[in-house]
Amino acid sequence: MSVQSKTSHCKIVDCTVRDGGLVNNWDFSVEFVQDLYESLNAAGVEYMEIGYKNSPKLLKSEGKEGPWRFLDDAFLRDIIQKKNTKLSALVDVGRVDEADVLPRSDSMLDLIRVATYARDTAKAIELATLFHERGYETTINIMALSNVMDNELNESLAMINDSPIDVVYIVDSFGSLDPDDFTYLVEKFRRSLKNKRLGVHTHNNMQLAFANTMAAAKLGVELLDASVYGMGRAAGNTPTELLLAKITRPEYSLRPVLGMIEKHMLKLREKEEWGYLIPDMITGMLDEHPRSAMGWRASEKRDLFTDFYDKMTTPEVYNK
Amino acid sequence: MSVQSKTSHCKIVDCTVRDGGLVNNWDFSVEFVQDLYESLNAAGVEYMEIGYKNSPKLLKSEGKEGPWRFLDDAFLRDIIQKKNTKLSALVDVGRVDEADVLPRSDSMLDLIRVATYARDTAKAIELATLFHERGYETTINIMALSNVMDNELNESLAMINDSPIDVVYIVDSFGSLDPDDFTYLVEKFRRSLKNKRLGVHTHNNMQLAFANTMAAAKLGVELLDASVYGMGRAAGNTPTELLLAKITRPEYSLRPVLGMIEKHMLKLREKEEWGYLIPDMITGMLDEHPRSAMGWRASEKRDLFTDFYDKMTTPEVYNK
Repeated sequence: MSVQSKTSHCKIVDCTVRDGGLVNNWDFSVEFVQDLYESLNAAGVEYMEIGYKNSPKLLKSEGKEGPWRFLDDAFLRDIIQKKNTKLSALVDVGRVDEADVLPRSDSMLDLIRVATYARDTAKAIELATLFHERGYETTINIMALSNVMDNELNESLAMINDSPIDVVYIVDSFGSLDPDDFTYLVEKFRRSLKNKRLGVHTHNNMQLAFANTMAAAKLGVELLDASVYGMGRAAGNTPTELLLAKITRPEYSLRPVLGMIEKHMLKLREKEEWGYLIPDMITGMLDEHPRSAMGWRASEKRDLFTDFYDKMTTPEVYNK
Repeated sequence: MSVQSKTSHCKIVDCTVRDGGLVNNWDFSVEFVQDLYESLNAAGVEYMEIGYKNSPKLLKSEGKEGPWRFLDDAFLRDIIQKKNTKLSALVDVGRVDEADVLPRSDSMLDLIRVATYARDTAKAIELATLFHERGYETTINIMALSNVMDNELNESLAMINDSPIDVVYIVDSFGSLDPDDFTYLVEKFRRSLKNKRLGVHTHNNMQLAFANTMAAAKLGVELLDASVYGMGRAAGNTPTELLLAKITRPEYSLRPVLGMIEKHMLKLREKEEWGYLIPDMITGMLDEHPRSAMGWRASEKRDLFTDFYDKMTTPEVYNK
């Protein structure tokens, strides 16, 4: 049934271009990205993450990736006419050239999110603080939480609590978590982060991305990551259209996103692969990075699921 | 993460042939059904629902459906060598010829489930009691619960409470319910049915089938319906492989079901359509029977999602 009363605090961050770019090497046409922006704006989606703001000088570029891999403000200004939907970019610790980052008042971007492992929290805080001081909304997204020991995570959260960062993200990088796990993590983050807002980023390896996101939303988590038609690395993300279908707020409208799916996503899904696939389900179950599943799907053995299962579960062959 | 301690009471009822038959008109080969039985038995799955036990005399037969539409005991005896996995059949109220039903001691079937709308509960009890008296395990599966008013449901549950039926099912026929809805229904059924065990049957229209099933399982629901690779009408069901991946009981093994998917389900999915599709998502969101979505997908307009959305949400065109 619809959720009307418990989600008025929520905002949707559509990651189709950024996380979906991991599927097709950011090979989205300008028309695709413009249509996506218009449809998200018409749907009432609050943020669109339009790519990565890493520097090509600091990250090995193959020279083949689309322009959403290394966002350029002048380029964005040419192609996007800003409306209500804010623009976001993701950066990775150690991959950003500070000289690339304009003050927010001169930039097309509103929100900059820093992805980090718990062990690099200090670096992430330094970087996010720079963006904060230049006027951006900022988040720190702690990846691979299911592989972090509690003492290390507690230290990370204590450091972030003392920083000026606005929002902290719970990221289920491996798609291994369930609604009870998210409930546990949201309550833990709440206890440790007294004055921070929270966000969640989920993956659909176990067909739990949407359920996990809604469980977090009902517990007060504010920023909900999603992708149109679930497009994202490997098993993909929470589908934006499901959030719009479920959270029946007056500001939200499902129809424009259905139009985007109809016009662009069906064709794209025929060309590129994402969503519920057995190898990704197996890495999710085993709480592993999906890279082995993605490699398997790219090989001739792509449909040999029992072989992949045996490889991943045989201690002699595979040691975590 | 895996669920080890809260699900030791659970049993899986695989519905691939019965509910999946609604997709392909029960056109499964004997080899397919034999392989499925062997894989479920090797996986430790407790029940396999091998079809419908309705009478062709009482249900318009097109003469084209596979043998799993009108199960025959002699045929089953020829093709299945019974092992640990029990066999189940579904019947519909008013479609069963009592003369077709052998005593359990002479039958290949162990479990007979009666599907009913709340308004036909008295008939369902009469029918299920007949099976009960002939020695079968029995369930009553109340369909379309999201469209039943509380006073009618309360009357149904009170009648079932006084019957000899073993198990009562919560059925999310339209795939419109979420984990909170299931929590509400399980608690309601528990209050009304003092000495009954419970079961759940879910549909995946909103990508919540598995999450709903696990929410119910953790609340003590015993029988969990599922289908291999999610095969079932329209958006399909909870995937059997996800239950086996999540409930890491010593008796369960995921690998044999992966072999079934590899050998049979991938090819079948190329030929037949089920799973997360936008029209089914829309009927789920609207709490409607999927028949309009299935009709749309069978038409030339199959990919015109905004047209379908407009049709389903325009009061002048569509009155519930």
